[in-house]
Amino acid sequence: MSNAYTQLIHALKILPNVGNKTAQRMAHTLLHTNRDGAAQLSQAIENALKQIHNCQLCHDFCEGELCAICANPQRDASRLMIVQMPADIAAMEAARCHDGLYFVLMGQVNPSQEMDLRSIALEQLIARLSGSSVEEIIIATAHTAEGDATAYILAELFKNQHYKISRLARGMPLGSELEYVDAGTLAQAVYDRNLLK
Amino acid sequence: MSNAYTQLIHALKILPNVGNKTAQRMAHTLLHTNRDGAAQLSQAIENALKQIHNCQLCHDFCEGELCAICANPQRDASRLMIVQMPADIAAMEAARCHDGLYFVLMGQVNPSQEMDLRSIALEQLIARLSGSSVEEIIIATAHTAEGDATAYILAELFKNQHYKISRLARGMPLGSELEYVDAGTLAQAVYDRNLLK
Ligand SMILES: [Zn+2]
Ligand SMILES: [Zn+2]
Repeated sequence: MSNAYTQLIHALKILPNVGNKTAQRMAHTLLHTNRDGAAQLSQAIENALKQIHNCQLCHDFCEGELCAICANPQRDASRLMIVQMPADIAAMEAARCHDGLYFVLMGQVNPSQEMDLRSIALEQLIARLSGSSVEEIIIATAHTAEGDATAYILAELFKNQHYKISRLARGMPLGSELEYVDAGTLAQAVYDRNLLK
Repeated sequence: MSNAYTQLIHALKILPNVGNKTAQRMAHTLLHTNRDGAAQLSQAIENALKQIHNCQLCHDFCEGELCAICANPQRDASRLMIVQMPADIAAMEAARCHDGLYFVLMGQVNPSQEMDLRSIALEQLIARLSGSSVEEIIIATAHTAEGDATAYILAELFKNQHYKISRLARGMPLGSELEYVDAGTLAQAVYDRNLLK
């Protein structure tokens, strides 16, 4: 097999859940079935890397310094909802039940891997809160082992601080990611949120 | 969400079995977890598109005009094994039971989609055989519905021609792709191949 092919297979394997067999199937698509799409993908990755960074406030992916939500003066800056992933914000916005701001952890704490805190944007969260007008923090992690561990870490972090802290009610189906939950259930979970301190 | 992000998600969805949710997970890896790997992937796709074409004889991916197997004068040019995918050649070579040449169809015929023949490199195969010294053709498609349909199409194509035609013995486990079969079973299937005409 050619060198460029081996390198392509190797490069594809950085994608989540992509092993040798899947990478070969992808390479077949890229090199045979859809070479135009492949050129567009290469370009899209290059563009995205160049243009997309993290919002300076919420840490979500965005092209400018601030994302549209953080830049919106209508949002209630006293309430901050902490979510795991960018897609969670879209799901929450569709539920129209939170008019505050967000912070994206870009990950979750894995309780089976010794709670490695580097998997969430903790430093950026602390910097975000420092000197801010946030009064209430809503922890909107999923009700999974990882979401529970992440919520626990956050609750510990804020234990001796002045914030009112809550977590989404268990109205959410267990074991399910936020973005798969329907808007009504999400709204219910926000209204029923439990005060942690 | 940003424009570059939307375009990245869109571009990722050309990959096999990648829907919205998987594309979002991939984008997270590319933009957050492993930006270096993402830059390498973009470059690897670009390089592969530039450097990798099809071998003029066997239609396999290769960087020059001829792949290493086709360019090897030691191989028996009178026997041609027809396989579905590039990975099948690697599996067959590891079984060390075929000293002839190969032809890669780069696909298979789907019997549930009206046997669309454009999914296999039929024209290139006909051109390959025209005026060649091939005497025997071994059809090495899988024993799946698609592999059977592909073998049927090939057998029909060669019906009134002088080639000795065989297909891999059913020693291969049913429903399994060539590259998952162990070398011993593959070798047995070649030795026991059934004469189709
Ligand atoms: Zn923001
Ligand atoms: Zn070749």
